[in-house]
Amino acid sequence: MSDQVKFLLNEDDIPKDWYNIVADLPEPPAPVLHPGTGNAIGPDDLAPLFPMASIMQEVSAERTIEIPTPVREIYRQWRPSPLYRARRLEKALDTPARIYYKYEGVSPTGSHKPNTAIAQAFFCKEEGVKRIATETGAGQWGSSLALAGSMFGLEIEVFMVRVSYDQKPYRRAFMETFGATCHASPSTLTESGRKILADNPNSTGSLGIAISEAVETAAQRDDTKYSLGSVLNHVLLHQTVVGQEAMRQMELAADYPDIVVGCTGGGSNFAGLSFPFIGAKLRGEQDVKIVAVEPANCPTLTKGKYAYDFGDTGNLTPLVKMHTLGSAFLPPASHAGGLRYHGMAPLVSQLVNLGEINPTAYSQTDCFDAGITFARAEGIVPAPEANHAVKGAIVEALRCKEEGASRAILFNLCGHGYFDMQAYTDYNSGKLEDYAYDESEVAMALAGLPSIS
Amino acid sequence: MSDQVKFLLNEDDIPKDWYNIVADLPEPPAPVLHPGTGNAIGPDDLAPLFPMASIMQEVSAERTIEIPTPVREIYRQWRPSPLYRARRLEKALDTPARIYYKYEGVSPTGSHKPNTAIAQAFFCKEEGVKRIATETGAGQWGSSLALAGSMFGLEIEVFMVRVSYDQKPYRRAFMETFGATCHASPSTLTESGRKILADNPNSTGSLGIAISEAVETAAQRDDTKYSLGSVLNHVLLHQTVVGQEAMRQMELAADYPDIVVGCTGGGSNFAGLSFPFIGAKLRGEQDVKIVAVEPANCPTLTKGKYAYDFGDTGNLTPLVKMHTLGSAFLPPASHAGGLRYHGMAPLVSQLVNLGEINPTAYSQTDCFDAGITFARAEGIVPAPEANHAVKGAIVEALRCKEEGASRAILFNLCGHGYFDMQAYTDYNSGKLEDYAYDESEVAMALAGLPSIS
Repeated sequence: MSDQVKFLLNEDDIPKDWYNIVADLPEPPAPVLHPGTGNAIGPDDLAPLFPMASIMQEVSAERTIEIPTPVREIYRQWRPSPLYRARRLEKALDTPARIYYKYEGVSPTGSHKPNTAIAQAFFCKEEGVKRIATETGAGQWGSSLALAGSMFGLEIEVFMVRVSYDQKPYRRAFMETFGATCHASPSTLTESGRKILADNPNSTGSLGIAISEAVETAAQRDDTKYSLGSVLNHVLLHQTVVGQEAMRQMELAADYPDIVVGCTGGGSNFAGLSFPFIGAKLRGEQDVKIVAVEPANCPTLTKGKYAYDFGDTGNLTPLVKMHTLGSAFLPPASHAGGLRYHGMAPLVSQLVNLGEINPTAYSQTDCFDAGITFARAEGIVPAPEANHAVKGAIVEALRCKEEGASRAILFNLCGHGYFDMQAYTDYNSGKLEDYAYDESEVAMALAGLPSIS
Repeated sequence: MSDQVKFLLNEDDIPKDWYNIVADLPEPPAPVLHPGTGNAIGPDDLAPLFPMASIMQEVSAERTIEIPTPVREIYRQWRPSPLYRARRLEKALDTPARIYYKYEGVSPTGSHKPNTAIAQAFFCKEEGVKRIATETGAGQWGSSLALAGSMFGLEIEVFMVRVSYDQKPYRRAFMETFGATCHASPSTLTESGRKILADNPNSTGSLGIAISEAVETAAQRDDTKYSLGSVLNHVLLHQTVVGQEAMRQMELAADYPDIVVGCTGGGSNFAGLSFPFIGAKLRGEQDVKIVAVEPANCPTLTKGKYAYDFGDTGNLTPLVKMHTLGSAFLPPASHAGGLRYHGMAPLVSQLVNLGEINPTAYSQTDCFDAGITFARAEGIVPAPEANHAVKGAIVEALRCKEEGASRAILFNLCGHGYFDMQAYTDYNSGKLEDYAYDESEVAMALAGLPSIS
């Protein structure tokens, strides 16, 4: 085994194709349904919102989809991202486990999000789109699409949830630095926004409202499309560069993971790392244990139902089959805004349902404890979302210690915490709290699911 | 020439030695003088403050000084840092110049500072030191020493200038995340601090006061040393890993810089990149033009005097020969806190005096304009300090365009701006202003210089 701590690849090693796990699934994904008719919807139904290239990827069953050269050109800025052996963390934990992490924080916006933002912006540009509208919660996705817009000369219009817009002015400044426009949502720019404000002028907004505003904005003009940063098949597809690189880097390390760990919100960073490994397992090439870590106060995979539901709280989107806490459920506040979603990527949900993924849930404070241990050993302060993956990896590493087993653990450190220091300020001053979710609220939200089998 | 955009080296390529430019200078550096006696001071005089290893490096004339293995072990986390060809920036500027930048923002704290923080902490650890005291302005240096402390199990005590302590709570949280203690300066913990507070309970502090507090804290206990993040010879020495790597990476690019650009505050990031290239020139191996960029409102090299002066405003430090605006001069506010220093590293000053370095000065807003151009082309938002280097590089690139000359320009992008988004918020909202320095204040400060030839 190599004694290196950092496994790097060259620009030529950036994957040439995205990997589509649909080709390796034992059965095709459940169809996406029209909320009105209950019928399966096709590419044309999505055409007003997405470029056709993205739509064809969304419904593709091909195992590999070529990454366009201009996208790979921009990936070169930070890809292949490094894979690290966490030797100091191993020592701090006194574990026989070999811990590796793929680090996506080296991207210009500090997370894995540009992997898909660049691709989506490119497909829009190719199809003559001038402007892309999107929503953002904490701002990581909006920043990444803003970056992509600056690379391809596209206008980017971001609807940022009001509470985050006010709390995280630096995220907004970051987007504006790349030339994007950022609106607090609800805004007076859309029918949906004005309606909310008429009812409640002090609305702090929600991701659901912001989605409605972005979708409406995209629909208003022919030259504008909508873009989503997670959940959908094509978004997960774009993230598979992460796992493909990691596979090659594990070869450089002369090792192979026994366990792959990722955090799950919408599912895209998790899928990006794990799908290539799950694919190898599904094809009977190599066994692996896959662990998905979610926040205990938004336990979509561990406490939710695998059923058809809406992607947004406003119930404007098509119906998808996924693990869900019910679209009416509003997850309690936490610093891991990127994991605060009632649903889950349909492909991740299908694999959980097949027993290929082991979902776990940990509290925010437990995850921050793990993040601090990691930061002091490895020198990188993880994003609050990534702390969940760190926690999952540490749990597995300590299990190795208990059992005296030397396993290789690989996790996705999907982003750094430079923009999330308020969370660490709260932690350091003992003010970080765990807000439990309301079980009766979830029960009600689940009871209200559309009745489709 | 390679068509790559990113030139990476392996862990094995981390330099084995630091490069000491003193060996290649035509004459030895001017001696450091005791402020009371005016006599040259020796290693023993510095022993209460610094570990002996650092002191011996401070006075060394050896060309190479071996980097201890434990320091290289930690460097492996992010070193060798990438060198980029800025192809999209070249295109945006429509210049025939080939622009390269060395990117130090990949370090755990986002700048070049850990290169010396790790080394200094290691030497303290080796000599049985338990605690290190230091000052920090905007917080970049304090964060890096905090990181180094967590790596070697040392207590780190940071005195942070009160105004920054209040304005940049996230920097403090960052230091605390690594386990350091951060005090607002002036504090009640030291004689110097209490004295200032007695005179002015609302004092917003200054770097000079913070230095006094840190030095006093180091002197209070035998197990405590003091550490400085720039200016001194050994600090510049540690940064030469940057330039040495860049030389090898330029070889990978099958190119050599005609022009090397860096920003100058205390001088360490600038020296880190440029000294190996200046050394090659001094040894007659390869010609190069060296450009130092400083803020127009703290124009140490372009408007200062090359003379003996104190390193701090309290006039407690030894006297060093350097370019200075006078230790009594308080530079006006700017977002480039790391460049807001009345003096300059003696080695940089000596080379400016020898005509080996071309100093230039640009206003904050000009530098931010350049930084925005860079961010939108290259996708990385530079630190306000680094914007000065970006500006210098763009000026040279546009000169190439004007003259139809295809030169290779290399600059040091010494840090990212993730912790400096208030500056970009101000810029984006048109509120970024240039505060001119008071010429009569500088004239008075210069008139007050100690009369030593």
